Amino acid sequence: MIVHDWPAGPYPARVRIALAELGLRERVRFETVDLYKGEHKREAFRAQKNFSGTLPVLELEDGTCIAECTAITEYLDHLEGAPRLTGANPRQRGLIHMMSKRAELEVLDAVSVYFHHATPGLGPTVELYQNPEWGLRQRDRALRGIRYFDGVLRAQPHVAGEAFSMADITLAGGLIFAGLVQLEIPEGCDALAAWWDRLQQRPSVANRVALSEA
Amino acid sequence: MIVHDWPAGPYPARVRIALAELGLRERVRFETVDLYKGEHKREAFRAQKNFSGTLPVLELEDGTCIAECTAITEYLDHLEGAPRLTGANPRQRGLIHMMSKRAELEVLDAVSVYFHHATPGLGPTVELYQNPEWGLRQRDRALRGIRYFDGVLRAQPHVAGEAFSMADITLAGGLIFAGLVQLEIPEGCDALAAWWDRLQQRPSVANRVALSEA
Repeated sequence: MIVHDWPAGPYPARVRIALAELGLRERVRFETVDLYKGEHKREAFRAQKNFSGTLPVLELEDGTCIAECTAITEYLDHLEGAPRLTGANPRQRGLIHMMSKRAELEVLDAVSVYFHHATPGLGPTVELYQNPEWGLRQRDRALRGIRYFDGVLRAQPHVAGEAFSMADITLAGGLIFAGLVQLEIPEGCDALAAWWDRLQQRPSVANRVALSEA
Repeated sequence: MIVHDWPAGPYPARVRIALAELGLRERVRFETVDLYKGEHKREAFRAQKNFSGTLPVLELEDGTCIAECTAITEYLDHLEGAPRLTGANPRQRGLIHMMSKRAELEVLDAVSVYFHHATPGLGPTVELYQNPEWGLRQRDRALRGIRYFDGVLRAQPHVAGEAFSMADITLAGGLIFAGLVQLEIPEGCDALAAWWDRLQQRPSVANRVALSEA
């Protein structure tokens, strides 16, 4: 299988972490798509890989392309036996998908909109339309979201409950993106900061960028 | 179980359709949350039901709340035996989740942003911030998305392949929302229009609003 991605990207990180957690690294090779040249926005990429023009994309042996991190994670998590990242029963599945989507809406996607609309983003050749006011609103949303997740992590060790799951990976993507755009975790978010420290000690998270050279 | 929703809402429609398709209607009762009074944006609702302040929310017997349509569908689809809406093998699961997310990004969520930002939306007491330029961009995105899905439906009978799935339900939500805001399906989208005609003949889609009075 091929993973089309950008090694340092926050969304690519989600799939790289999932691959490592599932022991599937050896089953994929990585193809770099140059974000700063806007290769992911070109017609050919949109037609053949992902209509939405985003990374990462998982290309199967037969050429089928699966885009969207949650969809790729669902695919990978069901490849061998019982799912380990997306929940083993209805209740877990519901809570993990909810918290993962919430981590997208309230943190990761919000930071992404901030980056693309209220900072230079990927530069003028890629960022053809910007709405700075919207971008700044989303920055504020992300900061609120981070505080919300701090509250969640005061009550339980992981984002969707007792166990590490896809929801932790999605929030990790949000904090990776926050780090890239120098959006600081607000003061007092001690539970979130402690969780993030623990997460960064997992080899899947610590070694995610070097993965393509491995 | 309780479904907190608004009977005519496009996102609530996704869960109502899923419930009917899975034969689970009798297991839930509906509680109306008044969107036009902004009940879904109040502190108590956000703290107890859904931090993101959106509908629908599924409340389990023990009070656990599951928000986000995909998460609720995952929960419901795994309640009894093999999943019927979210895919029975890794490949199906990947493709269904991808196409469902794409139907959100490119149609349903885009129409929603148009409604809330570039029309009066739910009225001035609820729409406290609007960004009309962003709303109009999202209307254009939705029209492009509808044309994309027309192309998909020229090649296959359902959004994610041969079989009806969660991805059809999500796109149905998009077309329901488009209808509410009088966004017309562009001319020439015959495959999409034919699919939508077929979908509206399913009892799950046709009877979704009346469900709460049943």
